Amino acid sequence: MRPDDIRQHNLSLLLSHVHRDGALTRAELTQRLSLSRSTVGALVGDLAQLGLVEEVVPNGGARVGRPSHVVAPHACGPYAVGVDVDVAHVTVAAITLGGTITAREVIATDGVVKPDGLVRLVVDAMRRLGSAVASPGRVCGIGVSVPGTVDVSTGLIGVAPNLGWEGVPLGEMLEAELPTQAPVVVGNDADLAVLAEHERGSARDCDDVVFLIGRIGVGAGIIINGVPVRGRDGHAGEIGHNVLDPSGPLCHCGKHGCIETFLGEGALLELAGRRLPRTDSKVAALFADARAGDVAALGAIRAAAETLGRTIANLLNTLNPERVILGGSLGDVLELARPDVEEAVVRYTFGDAGPGVVLETPAFGPDSALVGAGEVAFTALLADPR
Amino acid sequence: MRPDDIRQHNLSLLLSHVHRDGALTRAELTQRLSLSRSTVGALVGDLAQLGLVEEVVPNGGARVGRPSHVVAPHACGPYAVGVDVDVAHVTVAAITLGGTITAREVIATDGVVKPDGLVRLVVDAMRRLGSAVASPGRVCGIGVSVPGTVDVSTGLIGVAPNLGWEGVPLGEMLEAELPTQAPVVVGNDADLAVLAEHERGSARDCDDVVFLIGRIGVGAGIIINGVPVRGRDGHAGEIGHNVLDPSGPLCHCGKHGCIETFLGEGALLELAGRRLPRTDSKVAALFADARAGDVAALGAIRAAAETLGRTIANLLNTLNPERVILGGSLGDVLELARPDVEEAVVRYTFGDAGPGVVLETPAFGPDSALVGAGEVAFTALLADPR
Repeated sequence: MRPDDIRQHNLSLLLSHVHRDGALTRAELTQRLSLSRSTVGALVGDLAQLGLVEEVVPNGGARVGRPSHVVAPHACGPYAVGVDVDVAHVTVAAITLGGTITAREVIATDGVVKPDGLVRLVVDAMRRLGSAVASPGRVCGIGVSVPGTVDVSTGLIGVAPNLGWEGVPLGEMLEAELPTQAPVVVGNDADLAVLAEHERGSARDCDDVVFLIGRIGVGAGIIINGVPVRGRDGHAGEIGHNVLDPSGPLCHCGKHGCIETFLGEGALLELAGRRLPRTDSKVAALFADARAGDVAALGAIRAAAETLGRTIANLLNTLNPERVILGGSLGDVLELARPDVEEAVVRYTFGDAGPGVVLETPAFGPDSALVGAGEVAFTALLADPR
Repeated sequence: MRPDDIRQHNLSLLLSHVHRDGALTRAELTQRLSLSRSTVGALVGDLAQLGLVEEVVPNGGARVGRPSHVVAPHACGPYAVGVDVDVAHVTVAAITLGGTITAREVIATDGVVKPDGLVRLVVDAMRRLGSAVASPGRVCGIGVSVPGTVDVSTGLIGVAPNLGWEGVPLGEMLEAELPTQAPVVVGNDADLAVLAEHERGSARDCDDVVFLIGRIGVGAGIIINGVPVRGRDGHAGEIGHNVLDPSGPLCHCGKHGCIETFLGEGALLELAGRRLPRTDSKVAALFADARAGDVAALGAIRAAAETLGRTIANLLNTLNPERVILGGSLGDVLELARPDVEEAVVRYTFGDAGPGVVLETPAFGPDSALVGAGEVAFTALLADPR
């Protein structure tokens, strides 16, 4: 490597540590990067001059002696825009270095959003966010989460069935309309959710983890040996249409008994005898009623829990991860009927891959995919902070 | 790195290239290792003195001018012992650097082999192989393939249901009885099969590949992003007891409709209306009859092909690999009913992860797991050739 490449590599590494772990002392950075104190000092100086980090005295901690300064993300540094496209609403947020969401807008779409409508919606929301965020920094990247298959390298959406989209060059469309040169990265919702939880949530320091997300559809984000699994076309994790029972309900895809016909939010409502079409408020009411002891609601959730356990068991048999994170409505199912889920997991798992697996809800609650969109939006800046 | 570590690293790298790719010229090695000609010369000298490589004039190729010498595995170098434990027979083979099987014994076990019986069988076979192999070299490692879950670090077998084994410390047992200090490595059959095909078979230069093996049971070996997937306890790929249809046949595991009840060799015989218990010769007869046009045999195989396609589709939806290799009886099913398999793959795969996936049979035929056992037996020697 040439000296300039080494410098870029070290700036990238230092900024990535501060982004991931928040404020760190120079001593901690020196140790983590295995560099000399003077080199770390020079790198911190460079990043400070770029407006990316600042040295501050941490709050609290009334220790004896002079307080140690820490290197922290700059309060007025650049921010990323994270966009989470769900079927019923779109969330647009400003996320700072360090991963804090500092402003957000949630825009209801009434279940219908077309690609060009989404582009306008994002452009408008970004303008408003720009004046709302305290930080006067620039936008360093835009990350977009969609419930569909994505070619990560081009931002082309293959199929997003619940949006009714097919072959949409969303990355290009956004880049053409945005009032900034910042790069746009489009990703699958479950892939981005597992990334967020692995980087800074429930699956930190866990090398084999599956994030199973249930919204209208069901999908999985997978990290194996510490590396995201995307597959040949970026379709890995599209398990919502794996058939659980060939004599099960008819799915909109034309097959019978897909996972989605048992665990999608529409299926949960039907199981509880509630009227379709599915809306956010009906789904929220179902879980609220179950928490309040409604027998039909709880019965539906316990039935779904059994199927969820079997779905998890299939993933455990295939990948034997350390941890499975259940997001969206599946997190509610876990909270309301954990014993049923666990019992089915053990029953349907081969050998001892089932007992002992950690099932949990996401540290970021409903925001995992949004936070993950922010993470990928920072990729370019972190790779080359200059 | 200290100079001695660098030397070990370079010796390891050079020997690994020659082991994987066979004879290479010094010029090729110089280019691949990005080292100087003189360094490569010194490394080749060291490895030759250790009896691991030799420089030879390649056969054939009547080129003009002085023939270029190539660096090849030493004809009298050390060899690995590969052991493939199947339910009906055990294969013990001598495998040289470069991956050539130079001698083998197949010992029928009539479907019953106990752990201590296997140890005796391997020790005896190794004694005979020792005099049979042309090479007077020493044994550098023993690799053992078993149809069950394995903790690779200890050689402890968790469950091997079709052998009736549970909690067997096979690695330790073999190390205690073998007349050599060579390391013993135990692995799952599908994991070793995919390793062999990835290193030197049908999946060379393919980073995402699944090897689906069908014998009495069904299992998968998975490589993702170029790295073997083992999971938390080494149970990854144990898909044989994933439930395909809850109203399917009763499985010996107590559940209904496991993949094994549709695609295991016993299931194939039953589908064709043949009498159980399954034997190697009955399975061979089934495929021979199907190839000769027997309607019932072919009908059974076409029915299995549909289920096989659905099983593959589930793996494609989950992992979106570039290639799926079908070994054991599943390779025969593919050869006899490829259109049925492919049709079901496309029908059950979400989006376009199905069309275009490469389905093929293993380059090593029935020997993939055996060759993989040889590969892991060389690990210690390749890591430190001195």
